[in-house]
Amino acid sequence: LLNLILTLSVLGNHALAQTNLTYQQIINAQRTLSIGAVIFPGFQPLDLYGPLSVLHGISSTYQMTLSIISTRTGPVSFGVPPFSRGDFSFMIGAETVATHTFETAPALDMILVPGGWGSAVLIEQNNTGIEDFVARRFNMTDYGNVVLSVCTGAVHLARSGILNGQPATTNKAQWRYFTQLAASYRAENVEWLPSARWVNSNEGKVWTSSGVAAGIDMIHAWLKHAYGDTKAVRNVMNGIEYAPHTDSHWDPFSVVHDV
Amino acid sequence: LLNLILTLSVLGNHALAQTNLTYQQIINAQRTLSIGAVIFPGFQPLDLYGPLSVLHGISSTYQMTLSIISTRTGPVSFGVPPFSRGDFSFMIGAETVATHTFETAPALDMILVPGGWGSAVLIEQNNTGIEDFVARRFNMTDYGNVVLSVCTGAVHLARSGILNGQPATTNKAQWRYFTQLAASYRAENVEWLPSARWVNSNEGKVWTSSGVAAGIDMIHAWLKHAYGDTKAVRNVMNGIEYAPHTDSHWDPFSVVHDV
Repeated sequence: LLNLILTLSVLGNHALAQTNLTYQQIINAQRTLSIGAVIFPGFQPLDLYGPLSVLHGISSTYQMTLSIISTRTGPVSFGVPPFSRGDFSFMIGAETVATHTFETAPALDMILVPGGWGSAVLIEQNNTGIEDFVARRFNMTDYGNVVLSVCTGAVHLARSGILNGQPATTNKAQWRYFTQLAASYRAENVEWLPSARWVNSNEGKVWTSSGVAAGIDMIHAWLKHAYGDTKAVRNVMNGIEYAPHTDSHWDPFSVVHDV
Repeated sequence: LLNLILTLSVLGNHALAQTNLTYQQIINAQRTLSIGAVIFPGFQPLDLYGPLSVLHGISSTYQMTLSIISTRTGPVSFGVPPFSRGDFSFMIGAETVATHTFETAPALDMILVPGGWGSAVLIEQNNTGIEDFVARRFNMTDYGNVVLSVCTGAVHLARSGILNGQPATTNKAQWRYFTQLAASYRAENVEWLPSARWVNSNEGKVWTSSGVAAGIDMIHAWLKHAYGDTKAVRNVMNGIEYAPHTDSHWDPFSVVHDV
């Protein structure tokens, strides 16, 4: 804290004007962001690793820690478990190691929930692990209280109740199926926006993105929100050679998928 | 094989004309693609999971298997090990499980080599595991003999010798550093193209992409090459809501990074 106060007093208003950073962004740059990424069998790998890859890059500038959280610790495959739509277990999969359970996860500033066909499997199994975890932790997160979902991960946020009465978006390819699944458990009056690359709602605390690759655009928007449009943020996107969509209303896929 | 002959005789030239598919593409659609993805400490996660996510999607249509290959089986982190440029082990990392070693990997049709700062670490450690594996397997791959690299993964392909006298590209953000590292071991006269999203060389058998996100565009181009511009290929890109760059010459990042 002393370090922070010194920084602020040295920087002062002059520096703020020079850099166009807010006090909150300067404070954020001084803190360690504790990230918790949730996984489950049949998660969509790019949902997770798109945002994680961007956060990995920026973690060379802004201090971060990462916990991979699931029902149990150990390997979790993105291969799709059988469910009512069919047996797609022949699809390729690889395993990511969960380091924590919902019970043992450390204090978190950010919770990241990917989607994937596994979202439907969890709901069919009446597995509310993610929903209960998000509901329990939502008011305990500190760093702007941020919970982010990619693709059908929004289904779990909706069912946790943190999107009640709020605008949100999700995957466009299976829009009707997943928004119907999402209208259950603690969900009430979620306002699903069919055309949006991402949506920032609940006083800036919840971010939902459209399908899969949209997670990269959302995390870029969140970085600019949290740290400002800094050289470090621009460098990380140029470093991964990704030209982000910076307009949250850009959504050709809502047209492609007719939602 | 009988299945294949029957298919071809039923489809005949009429079907080929209707679908604009080549015989090779129809043959490919009937086969199981055995994919081997290489990992190592400090691999760039999006290098791996961008292409894998696309292959995961298309594996619901075209049969595939996936082996994750490394020096040892078990968890491998994308966290960056210390190396001569500094200690970046504070950067966040998560673990992917290697299912096979370079010695136990099954017969493969495709070898996918991601990059990352770990590429530099391997070279500093005189670890030629990837290079020797690629060199040994190159003429044993069948399905169009395809070896693909993303980002600095091209350094390992160069050092394996399969890019000798061939055009190739790699990461633009650290172009000089990595192309210098790549000029060692079995590499001879690799023709590095500083401006390219991806390059297809060595009679179509080797594909190298630019940095990180370029791997998604490259795998999309490869899918069209291998299976044709089919509905399944279009569906998978629309499914992940990614608008691919389809021009291999598109490269704003060569300008950004001044290479």
